[in-house]
Amino acid sequence: AIDGERLWQSLMDLAQIGATPKGGNCRLALSKEDGQGRDLVVGWMREAGLEITVDQVGNIFGVRPGRDPARKPVMTGSHIDTQPTGGRFDGCFGVMAGLEVMRTLNDQGIQTEAPLALTIWTNEEGTRFVPVMMGSGVHCGVFPLETALAATDVDGKAVRDELAAIGYAGTAPIGTVQAGSYLEAHIEQGPILEAEETTIGVVTGSLGLRWYDVTVTGMEAHAGPTPMALRRDALYAATHLMQAVVDIANDPAFAPLGRGTVGVVNAYPASRNVIPGRVQFTVDLRHEDAALLEQMEQRFRAAAAALAAGETTGTPVQVDIAFVQEFPPTPFDRTLVERVRSEAIARGMSQRDIVTGAGHDAVYMARCVPTAMIFVPCKDGISHNEVEDADPKHLEAGANVLLGAMLAQAA
Amino acid sequence: AIDGERLWQSLMDLAQIGATPKGGNCRLALSKEDGQGRDLVVGWMREAGLEITVDQVGNIFGVRPGRDPARKPVMTGSHIDTQPTGGRFDGCFGVMAGLEVMRTLNDQGIQTEAPLALTIWTNEEGTRFVPVMMGSGVHCGVFPLETALAATDVDGKAVRDELAAIGYAGTAPIGTVQAGSYLEAHIEQGPILEAEETTIGVVTGSLGLRWYDVTVTGMEAHAGPTPMALRRDALYAATHLMQAVVDIANDPAFAPLGRGTVGVVNAYPASRNVIPGRVQFTVDLRHEDAALLEQMEQRFRAAAAALAAGETTGTPVQVDIAFVQEFPPTPFDRTLVERVRSEAIARGMSQRDIVTGAGHDAVYMARCVPTAMIFVPCKDGISHNEVEDADPKHLEAGANVLLGAMLAQAA
Ligand SMILES: NC(=O)NCCC(=O)O
Ligand SMILES: NC(=O)NCCC(=O)O
Repeated sequence: AIDGERLWQSLMDLAQIGATPKGGNCRLALSKEDGQGRDLVVGWMREAGLEITVDQVGNIFGVRPGRDPARKPVMTGSHIDTQPTGGRFDGCFGVMAGLEVMRTLNDQGIQTEAPLALTIWTNEEGTRFVPVMMGSGVHCGVFPLETALAATDVDGKAVRDELAAIGYAGTAPIGTVQAGSYLEAHIEQGPILEAEETTIGVVTGSLGLRWYDVTVTGMEAHAGPTPMALRRDALYAATHLMQAVVDIANDPAFAPLGRGTVGVVNAYPASRNVIPGRVQFTVDLRHEDAALLEQMEQRFRAAAAALAAGETTGTPVQVDIAFVQEFPPTPFDRTLVERVRSEAIARGMSQRDIVTGAGHDAVYMARCVPTAMIFVPCKDGISHNEVEDADPKHLEAGANVLLGAMLAQAA
Repeated sequence: AIDGERLWQSLMDLAQIGATPKGGNCRLALSKEDGQGRDLVVGWMREAGLEITVDQVGNIFGVRPGRDPARKPVMTGSHIDTQPTGGRFDGCFGVMAGLEVMRTLNDQGIQTEAPLALTIWTNEEGTRFVPVMMGSGVHCGVFPLETALAATDVDGKAVRDELAAIGYAGTAPIGTVQAGSYLEAHIEQGPILEAEETTIGVVTGSLGLRWYDVTVTGMEAHAGPTPMALRRDALYAATHLMQAVVDIANDPAFAPLGRGTVGVVNAYPASRNVIPGRVQFTVDLRHEDAALLEQMEQRFRAAAAALAAGETTGTPVQVDIAFVQEFPPTPFDRTLVERVRSEAIARGMSQRDIVTGAGHDAVYMARCVPTAMIFVPCKDGISHNEVEDADPKHLEAGANVLLGAMLAQAA
């Protein structure tokens, strides 16, 4: 069994880097803080005897040799980048749980048949740079290395340069370290396990996701003299489409696993006495069912077309929808999922099936190798928030299931 | 009569400073470009023999002595700061028309009985710093000098420091130069004169204005796993109140002189996979009638209360409304207004009464001294936009009415 206190302590030590006033973390991907976090954890990985490889997109792999060097490692991992006002557990729990597995095996002098590996993936959050789940996406061939390296943040800084700036522009070709199977422990980031007082979520797969950037163009004009009837207010128009995103997801036809969110909005020229001439906002649509996700998109596009035609507000505007990223609903590996369940049951833990609403590196890994995830509850189901919290007992339980599943896989 | 070509040339020369790609101007108040614009125009004012005074809020006064030094000057003026994507005429026309009056009198060797004065007011636009109409507001005792000097922009830079940085932290106490009466020429910034093919708008007064900053607070959470039913999406909530601002102004009860605008909106933490926990937006309400403006505010506050209580979306949120600034509907001086009209009629120009929907320095000056304004048409009624345009013939006509009215006042 793993050491729950050591696991908790490592999480708290990592959370010192980029700590925010309300008890959360801001370690945006490839920021100075992300660099400091990586240095700290890589130090721990080396102390645990792992052999470190950094690939060209900055993914960090730590390998623990097995008796059979011909076998591909049983890999675990997650990310340590965070949202701007993120929590201490999202991603970090998966990495620290993997480290704790390695430390525990070291303490007990156990060598596995297959090698084990712990991975820190680059830019999972997708806040500062898209594509989201960047490191695992490149690793699995979902998009090219060049797409990732050329991605820029709002200030125009490129992944390529920001990797170099924090010292993680690795030289190992993509795929240097390859997994035989992949397991990822994570907090649920939703309310189900807590509400049902269940310790382990056996993750059967993930919702599909589609991201868009929307631009609504009207006509900039003076907020005072311009009569209401003559306005082409891009923001007034845009609010209707922003509402449609949420209203569509709320439609019983898409319940309970449809989601619609507008996270970012900006109006230009951003002056209080100018009618906005242009508004940009982001759209995040998700569903468990590919056909229903497609229907959600069609409904959203129909709402955009009606708005553009002037049917919604009486005033035509220009609406441009740029596709940003998508992944389909992704089922995990049946056998590995059942292994997670049996490890939980063997330890007397309550467990239930669950679908992840968040994307995870596991979602891309599932395209290459047998993959599963282990969820534990988080407080009030809240994540992507500084107040994100988790019970040390649940984290310990999740790490123990990870230990059991990795040992079984590596046997 | 004034020299229309010289007037146009001066406007085009000034428009070189802070020129924008689409033919407009960006000379935000107290920016480097505003400083360069001031230097250029002050140079012209000195060449025209005006005696320059810069007061403590950076207002620039250029006085042309009269035969009777005991009389207070007949003042004209406006501003040369612009919106972020502003035009070449808003404000600048009033200043250049005043300069052209001085040049014309010099050319013809005319000395007036009362002195004349040309003023460039600080930060009329209110985009970078509030209060709007800052320089004239301090001059007229609407708010204290200290309020103006302590005002900061979004980057936290204070008016006090930015005045010093461009060399316009004047030492003359507020009120050193005082007007006997005030006339301001301006483009209409609305569509009426052009639509009616009228050359001169005889401005009888201005709409009242009320500005607010609104904060809607919900709960930040993950856009993927958080079920729709459990969300407290601050942006979804805020869109309803943003729409109410426009819908209220569109209500026939407030037509045709009610206005409602949301110009700036920001959602936090501004990440595409985070449900916004906080949204801030600006509100601009205007009306010609004080009682109806008050009703518009009450309707807006009722909409905010309903939203906060969960009556609008089914989900309660916190709504905070901060008052930013207001001025009441302001009538101009009857006698001076009729003087503007008779100067237009005397020159055979078409004219009509008009109410200004925009605030102007004249609105604050009207509190201290007899004040009137002269409007000329602008293309498509568009202002606060880079494409803002005006017909040189109309500008010339407006400057000639200004000349005539100033001479009559100074007799
Ligand atoms: N786990 C997590 O927060 N992933 C970010 C990608 C997403 O938006 O689902
Ligand atoms: N003239 C002008 O654009 N003034 C700005 C103040 C306002 O918003 O009315």
